[in-house]
Amino acid sequence: MTRFKFTIAYDGTAYFGWQIQPRYPSVQQVMEKVLADITGQEERVKVQGSGRTDHGVHARGQVAHADLECRMKPEKLMLALNSRLPPDIRILKTVRAKPHFNARRSATAKEYRYFVWNDALMLPDKRLYLTHVHQPLNLALLRDAAKRFVGRHDFASFMANPSRAIHTSERTIFSFTVTRKGKEICFRVRGDGFLYKQVRSMVGFLLRVGEGAEPPEAVTELLDSCAPRTARVQTAPPQGLFLWQVWYGRKIPPLGQQGKD
Amino acid sequence: MTRFKFTIAYDGTAYFGWQIQPRYPSVQQVMEKVLADITGQEERVKVQGSGRTDHGVHARGQVAHADLECRMKPEKLMLALNSRLPPDIRILKTVRAKPHFNARRSATAKEYRYFVWNDALMLPDKRLYLTHVHQPLNLALLRDAAKRFVGRHDFASFMANPSRAIHTSERTIFSFTVTRKGKEICFRVRGDGFLYKQVRSMVGFLLRVGEGAEPPEAVTELLDSCAPRTARVQTAPPQGLFLWQVWYGRKIPPLGQQGKD
Repeated sequence: MTRFKFTIAYDGTAYFGWQIQPRYPSVQQVMEKVLADITGQEERVKVQGSGRTDHGVHARGQVAHADLECRMKPEKLMLALNSRLPPDIRILKTVRAKPHFNARRSATAKEYRYFVWNDALMLPDKRLYLTHVHQPLNLALLRDAAKRFVGRHDFASFMANPSRAIHTSERTIFSFTVTRKGKEICFRVRGDGFLYKQVRSMVGFLLRVGEGAEPPEAVTELLDSCAPRTARVQTAPPQGLFLWQVWYGRKIPPLGQQGKD
Repeated sequence: MTRFKFTIAYDGTAYFGWQIQPRYPSVQQVMEKVLADITGQEERVKVQGSGRTDHGVHARGQVAHADLECRMKPEKLMLALNSRLPPDIRILKTVRAKPHFNARRSATAKEYRYFVWNDALMLPDKRLYLTHVHQPLNLALLRDAAKRFVGRHDFASFMANPSRAIHTSERTIFSFTVTRKGKEICFRVRGDGFLYKQVRSMVGFLLRVGEGAEPPEAVTELLDSCAPRTARVQTAPPQGLFLWQVWYGRKIPPLGQQGKD
């Protein structure tokens, strides 16, 4: 058995998220099926992702590992995968990993990006990958509010009910930037890990701030409250969200770094 | 009856082109159905576009006219349309037009854009709106070849068999630019009119030049030959193509202008 590490991009439109579930198509299921075809393994091929993504959420840099009965070079395996996978899933990188590498447990940081189209009308060719917000958003308010998330906080107010018990809702956000280019607004958030629907809850609240419905100070107030999420915090729609990058090891982006790439 | 002029954006992925045809969905058909619902007209509402777009081709600025039994203000009509149309068709502008305005016959210039993703791998979220070219394209060769199309020429070598007799295959190209931004290459061509599959034939040949398979001088050679298209000229795939803008009246973009917008 050899452990492989895959970097994966996908268009989440047609999938009920990353994670395998009965009756609905998932990215993990498609990956496992194709890897089983390639390797001819008799037992189930298990592909472990760095974390779940929800129905309709996309990825540019999901990471997963799998143990395979496979003597192919990683480059050959990647070509075989991409030639069999549907075009809405692409393997961007394939390497051999150490046996103790675990795509979920070894992850030290993640970046998500959330894209908004801020105009009266949504362009048809943008609709699957950006969220439409027709009320004009104030960039200064968005930035003021976003930077209040940076640091170690209890994000209880910015998560949905977890599907399983979690030890703590404390997480660290390394950076949270907001940039605008024409009608497109890009939110970029890096942290050591994210709770269930945390990114979409944070962005959902930022959109309220950007519209003037909540002051930026409300972010600090909610973080300090450590209270469960209320109706003030709404989950932003999935189609604007991309899991952008996952880091492993000690070379994680330093606190507060507003990285370029 | 009032004549209205519509500016329309659409994602062509789900449609068999602009033009109504039996059994397959078209953008024109959807527009006519929704306008008939809104106006309650008993006879068929006819929507006349500036020209056809093929199966899978997109639009950012298709223009069409229709005569309607409708006393609504144009802004109201546009809201009613956008609330009933599917999200892959959006009306960007609606105005009352003079009775002699004709979306097809009054058009004096058109711009098409063609987008290419030039990298070994196609990103899933780009695949519906850019064409994947994995061989590295040489920008200098592309530009040299593209500017050879500018001017009045017989485009017989760069058109597919027309579905109906045409008087002439002479057309004027005002400008043809090629720009690169990262892995994305954008072709922008403006002309007084385009023959059947002309843009995709020109781009198809430019891609051969950019890969080094044909010299830029071959464009001039083929134009001068005035001969029907051969296997040297292939139709580029539809998903990278957008009908970007249609002009009416005398204020057309001057010859050779490399417009910014």
